[in-house]
Amino acid sequence: MSSSEWSNSVVGVLSPSAFSPSALSLGSSPTVQSEVEWAMHMGIPAVVFPAVPASPNFARLLHSTALLVSGSSTSIWLDVNFEPKEACYGGVQSILSSCDNASTIGLNLRFPEQETSSVTIATVLVHLNRFFGLPVKGVTLPTSIFLTNKKGYPTLSKKMQVVIEWIMKRGGDKIRWVIEGEKKHFPADENSQNNTSGYLNYLQYLFHLRSRSDVTEVLDCEEAKAESSYLDYLQAPLQPLADNLEFGTYETFERDPVKYRNYESAVLLAIRDGVNLQKWGGNTGNNVVNLMVVGAGRGPLVRASLNAVKRYNSTCLSPNLQPLTPRMLAVEKNPSAVIFLHSLVALEPGWKEVVRVISSDMREAVVAEEEKADIVVSELLGSFGDNELSPECLDGAEKSGLMKPDAVSIPTNYISYIAPLSSTKLHQEAKAQSYSATDGTHGPMGQPFGYLRAMETPYVVRSHAATQTHIEKECFTYVHPNPDLNDPAKSNSRFVRVEFESDEKYGMGNGCGYGLYNQQDAKLAEASEKVEGEVGSGITIHGLTGSFDSLLYKSQTENFEEHISIAPQTFSVGMFSWFPLFFPLRDPVFLPPGCTAGVNIWRLGDGKKIWYEWSVDIMKEGSLVSSTPVHNPNGRSYQVGL
Amino acid sequence: MSSSEWSNSVVGVLSPSAFSPSALSLGSSPTVQSEVEWAMHMGIPAVVFPAVPASPNFARLLHSTALLVSGSSTSIWLDVNFEPKEACYGGVQSILSSCDNASTIGLNLRFPEQETSSVTIATVLVHLNRFFGLPVKGVTLPTSIFLTNKKGYPTLSKKMQVVIEWIMKRGGDKIRWVIEGEKKHFPADENSQNNTSGYLNYLQYLFHLRSRSDVTEVLDCEEAKAESSYLDYLQAPLQPLADNLEFGTYETFERDPVKYRNYESAVLLAIRDGVNLQKWGGNTGNNVVNLMVVGAGRGPLVRASLNAVKRYNSTCLSPNLQPLTPRMLAVEKNPSAVIFLHSLVALEPGWKEVVRVISSDMREAVVAEEEKADIVVSELLGSFGDNELSPECLDGAEKSGLMKPDAVSIPTNYISYIAPLSSTKLHQEAKAQSYSATDGTHGPMGQPFGYLRAMETPYVVRSHAATQTHIEKECFTYVHPNPDLNDPAKSNSRFVRVEFESDEKYGMGNGCGYGLYNQQDAKLAEASEKVEGEVGSGITIHGLTGSFDSLLYKSQTENFEEHISIAPQTFSVGMFSWFPLFFPLRDPVFLPPGCTAGVNIWRLGDGKKIWYEWSVDIMKEGSLVSSTPVHNPNGRSYQVGL
Repeated sequence: MSSSEWSNSVVGVLSPSAFSPSALSLGSSPTVQSEVEWAMHMGIPAVVFPAVPASPNFARLLHSTALLVSGSSTSIWLDVNFEPKEACYGGVQSILSSCDNASTIGLNLRFPEQETSSVTIATVLVHLNRFFGLPVKGVTLPTSIFLTNKKGYPTLSKKMQVVIEWIMKRGGDKIRWVIEGEKKHFPADENSQNNTSGYLNYLQYLFHLRSRSDVTEVLDCEEAKAESSYLDYLQAPLQPLADNLEFGTYETFERDPVKYRNYESAVLLAIRDGVNLQKWGGNTGNNVVNLMVVGAGRGPLVRASLNAVKRYNSTCLSPNLQPLTPRMLAVEKNPSAVIFLHSLVALEPGWKEVVRVISSDMREAVVAEEEKADIVVSELLGSFGDNELSPECLDGAEKSGLMKPDAVSIPTNYISYIAPLSSTKLHQEAKAQSYSATDGTHGPMGQPFGYLRAMETPYVVRSHAATQTHIEKECFTYVHPNPDLNDPAKSNSRFVRVEFESDEKYGMGNGCGYGLYNQQDAKLAEASEKVEGEVGSGITIHGLTGSFDSLLYKSQTENFEEHISIAPQTFSVGMFSWFPLFFPLRDPVFLPPGCTAGVNIWRLGDGKKIWYEWSVDIMKEGSLVSSTPVHNPNGRSYQVGL
Repeated sequence: MSSSEWSNSVVGVLSPSAFSPSALSLGSSPTVQSEVEWAMHMGIPAVVFPAVPASPNFARLLHSTALLVSGSSTSIWLDVNFEPKEACYGGVQSILSSCDNASTIGLNLRFPEQETSSVTIATVLVHLNRFFGLPVKGVTLPTSIFLTNKKGYPTLSKKMQVVIEWIMKRGGDKIRWVIEGEKKHFPADENSQNNTSGYLNYLQYLFHLRSRSDVTEVLDCEEAKAESSYLDYLQAPLQPLADNLEFGTYETFERDPVKYRNYESAVLLAIRDGVNLQKWGGNTGNNVVNLMVVGAGRGPLVRASLNAVKRYNSTCLSPNLQPLTPRMLAVEKNPSAVIFLHSLVALEPGWKEVVRVISSDMREAVVAEEEKADIVVSELLGSFGDNELSPECLDGAEKSGLMKPDAVSIPTNYISYIAPLSSTKLHQEAKAQSYSATDGTHGPMGQPFGYLRAMETPYVVRSHAATQTHIEKECFTYVHPNPDLNDPAKSNSRFVRVEFESDEKYGMGNGCGYGLYNQQDAKLAEASEKVEGEVGSGITIHGLTGSFDSLLYKSQTENFEEHISIAPQTFSVGMFSWFPLFFPLRDPVFLPPGCTAGVNIWRLGDGKKIWYEWSVDIMKEGSLVSSTPVHNPNGRSYQVGL
C-alpha cells in the first residue's frame, strides 16, 4: 500500500500479548511501545487499545503511550464495549482522568456482535449522550450486527437505525466508522466475496442512512456548514466597548436571518402598542415617533426600525389613524462606523430626511429635549447576555438623558443562563490556550498566556464535542429602562447559586449545549431504564456553558412577545450571531449519582472593569464531596474594560 | 504605640458590619477592603475573619482579601469555633478549597467561653489532629475558660491542660496564642486589674505548661532544635549516584547518633553468626573476615565495621575460639572522598594494615578472588528507601563479582512505606516551587520550574504542619543479595496499590508523619466518640508521605535483628539522617466518610534513569468519587540518573 493509504484507511491493532497480565503488571509494555512507534513511522492515524477492565496499570500504560504519540499524526483509541447494561462510563472516565485527559486519546465505541435486545433505544441513547462529552472518535460495527435485506445487502434493525442516525446527528463528520468482521452481506450473484470491496456494501448503507434528511438537519444544512470550521474552536469574547469592531465583523453579523427580523417585529409591536395606548398616531395630533439606535454600527437596526415604521404605515393603518413620521438618531462611538453611517444617510432612499448620526459614546451623548427617544433600540448583547456590558452602556445612555421618561427599550430585558457541560474536548482546548500568546493586556505581549489564565477565561465557542448535562438555569437578569438606576443600594453586580441534581437522564435533550432543546430526545429519556450496578456511574463536568434569552419586547396591548435566545430551552432556530460562552473548570469535577452540583457565579465590577468569578461544589446530602477554587478572583485573569 | 508594637502585638478585628447579610450578598465588602488596607499600612500581622457559616460569598470575600494581602506582612486568620460536637472541619475545608488554599490564610482555633463538658479529651484531640493538616496559626482562649487556683492565679482544668499541651507539642512555636476577654484571674492583693499586664498571668501560665518536659520532648530537645529551620522546608532529594556529595554533607550525616551504632551492632551480629555457623573464627583455621564497604564516603562504615570486629575480639571470645583478623575493602566512586579515605588509612591506628581503598564505581569495581566480601556494608538508602538507587548499585556490585556466593549484605533489605498526608502547608510549598529556577536538567537553566514540574516532584521535607491521616503501608521491598539477580523476568521496577479506608480516627498517633507512632494518642483515639451529623466530615489529602524501614541484619543463630527506620510505626528515635519524602498531588483530594483512598505508585526505569509515578483515587462502594491524573508519567518532571 502507498503511504497515503496507510495514513488514511488503516487503524492499528496492537498484539493481544501486549496486554497480558504480566505485561500489565508494571503499566509498561515494550511491545506496545515498539508497535506504536512503528505506527507513527507509517503515519497510521489511530492505534486501538483494547477494552480491558480499568486498572491503574492499564491507565498508566495508556497515559505513557498517549505522551509518546504526542506531536505525531497518530492517536490512540481506547475501545469501549458499548453495552449500556455493563459497567462502562465510570471506568472510562477513571482511565481518562488518570491520563490527565490527554488530547491524543480518543474513544472507539464498539457495538456488540449481536444486538442487545433487552435494552431499549431510550437507554442506549441516554448512555450515548453521556459519552458524547468524552472524546468519541470512532464507532465500530461488527458485520454480524447487520441484517440482510431482500436483495442480499446489509441493513440494520429499526432500533439500530435510530441509534446510528442519532450518532451521526451528534457526531457529524468528526466520527470515523469502522466495519469489522467477516463480510457476509451481499447478493448471491456478486463476486466480491473475497475482495476488500465487500465492505463497501456496509459503508454504502451507512452513507444511505446519513443522506436521510432528518439526520442531516443538524449539522449538514447550509447554514450549519458555515459553522463547521468553528466547531469546538475557542474564541476570546468580543469587547466591542473597549475595542472598535472591524468592518467585516459587522458585515458577518448583519447576515443573521433571524435576529433583525425579530428586532423589526419588536419595534413594530412597540409602535402598535404606542398607537393603542394613544401615545402617537391616533387623533392626538402627535404622529412623530422618536427612534434611537444606540451602538448603531453599520446601521442594520436603523434599517430594521425604519422598516417597522414603514410596515406599520403600509399594513396596520385603519381609516381613523394617522400615518407615523419616524425621527431616527443613530448613536455610534466607533468613528470608522460613523463614516459608513454618514454614507448610508446620503445614499439610502428616505434616510436623509429622518436619520441623524451622533458620533459619540452613548454614555456621553447629548441630545435636545425634543430629540429624546420614545423607543431605544440596541444590540449590545454577548453570548452570556450581559458580558459585553450592555447593562452599563444602556444605564449610561439613560443617565445621559437620551430617553424620554416613558421610553421603551428594545431589548426590554435579558437573562443569562448557565448549565454544566461535559466536554473533554473543550477542556483540552482551554488548556491548550496556555501556550497561546497574550495580547499584552495581562503580562508582556507575546508571552505565553499561562495555565492559570487559560483556565480562568471564558471563551465563545460553538460547542460540539460536548454534552450539556442538565437543563440550563436562570442566572442574571437585567431590565431596561433600569428601575434601579437611581437606587444607590442597587448595582449591576450580581451573585447567583444554582444547583443541579444528578439524575439518570444526564441531560438528554440539551444536546451539546447549542441548538434547540430536543423534546423528542427528552421524552425518550423518560422511558429509559435505570442501569443497575454500573460501577462509577455519574458524569464528569469540565466547565459551564453560558447562554442568554432576551425579551426584545412584550406587547402591553396584544398577546405577543418577541425574543432572541441561544438558551437551548428557547433557542431561536436559524440565528447564528452568538455561540455559547464556555467557562472552563481548572480541573474537571465528577458528579457521582445521588449528588448535587452547586454552581456559584458572580458578576462584579470596580468602576473600571467588569468580570465574572465562578466555582462548583459537589455535595451529597449536605456533605462536601469535592469543590473547585473560585475562578478568576478579582478579575485577575479575565476582565471586560468599561 | 510604636510601629514595632503594631507589627508584633496586635491582631486586627474587622467591624462586624463588614459581614452583614447585605455586605455578604455579593462576596465583596468595601469595609473589609478599607480596614484590611489600613492593617497592611500599619504592618499588623493578622486580621481576623469571624467564624460565620460557610457560604460561597463568604469564601469569595475571603479569597479576594487573601489576594489583596499577598506580598504584604499581613495575613488573614479565619476564626474557627472549635467545638468538636459542631460542624466544623468540612465547612473550613470547603472555604479553604474555594480560596485555592491561599498561603495568606491561616486558621485561628477559638475555644468556647466555657469548657464543653460533654466531649471527652479523646474526641477533642482527634479533631485537633485533623485540623493540624490545615494551616492552624493561632489559638484563642477566652479568659472565662480558666479556673482560679488557691493563690488567685489562672489555671486550667486537667482536661484543658492535656489539650493545650497537645497543641504545644504538635504546633511548637509556630502557634500564636491569643488571650481574650475580661481579665479576672489575679490575687486579690494585686493591683494590676486595670493594666494590660493583667493578661500576663494567663500567658505565664501557658509558659509554665510549655516548660513541662513532656511537652518539650518533641520539638524542643537539643537535636530537634537543629531541625527547626528545616520544618516544612522542601529540599530536592540528594542524587549521590549522579552527583558527588560535598565534604560538609558527609560530615553532617556522620554525626547521626543512632545510625552508625545500629550498623556496628548489625556487623557484630553478622560476625557472631559466622562464628556460630563455623564460617570463620572457630577451629577451622579460617580467622579472616573479608569486609567491604561500598560507597565508603569519608569512612564512617569502615570505622563502624572495624569497631564491630574489635568488639567481637574483646568481648565475645570464648577460650576455644580464634580472634578474627579483618580485611577491609573501601570502594568509593567520588574521587574527592577517596583522597580523604587515603589520608584516613595513613592516619587512623590500625587501618594501614587492613584497609585497602578502591577508587571505582561499585558497579565496575574489580577485585581478586581472595578479596571477595564475606560481609558487604553500604549506606545507599534515601528517604523512601530505594530512591537513591541502592537496588541498582548493590545489584551492580553483586554482578561485578565483589561478593562471595554466601556473602551477607548489610542492609539485608529495605521496605518503603507510603501514607496519605494532609498538609495545606506542604502543598503550598510545593506550588511555590513553580517559581524557583531549574538547575538545567529539565529546560533551560535558571528558567522557572513551572507548575507541572513543581507538582510532579517528590521533595525531602521535615514535615511539621501536617497530619498523616493513616498508618503507613508497605510499598516496595528490596532484598540483598538479590535472589532475582539473574532472572530476566524480574527487575527492580515495581508497582503497588494500597488502600486507605476513611475512618473516624483520622490518623491519630501518626502525628505529622515524622517521628515515632504515638501509642498513647492512638489508644486515646479508640475512646473518642463518633461525632454525629458533622456536615462535610472527612479529611483532605494534599499528598503522600514516603518513608522506609531497613532490616540491617537479622541473626540466623540468635533471636535478634537490627533496623533503621523513619516509618512512624518503627521509627528509630534519635536518628536524624533522613526526613520523609513528600509526593505532592497537583490538586488536593477530599476523602469523605465511608470512602476509600486508593494510592497507586510505580517505580520504573529505562536503563538510563529511574523515576516514580503516582496517582490517587477515591472510591465509595466500588464507585468512582474522584481521581487524580497519574503524576510524572515517563519521568517527565522528576527522575534519578543511573
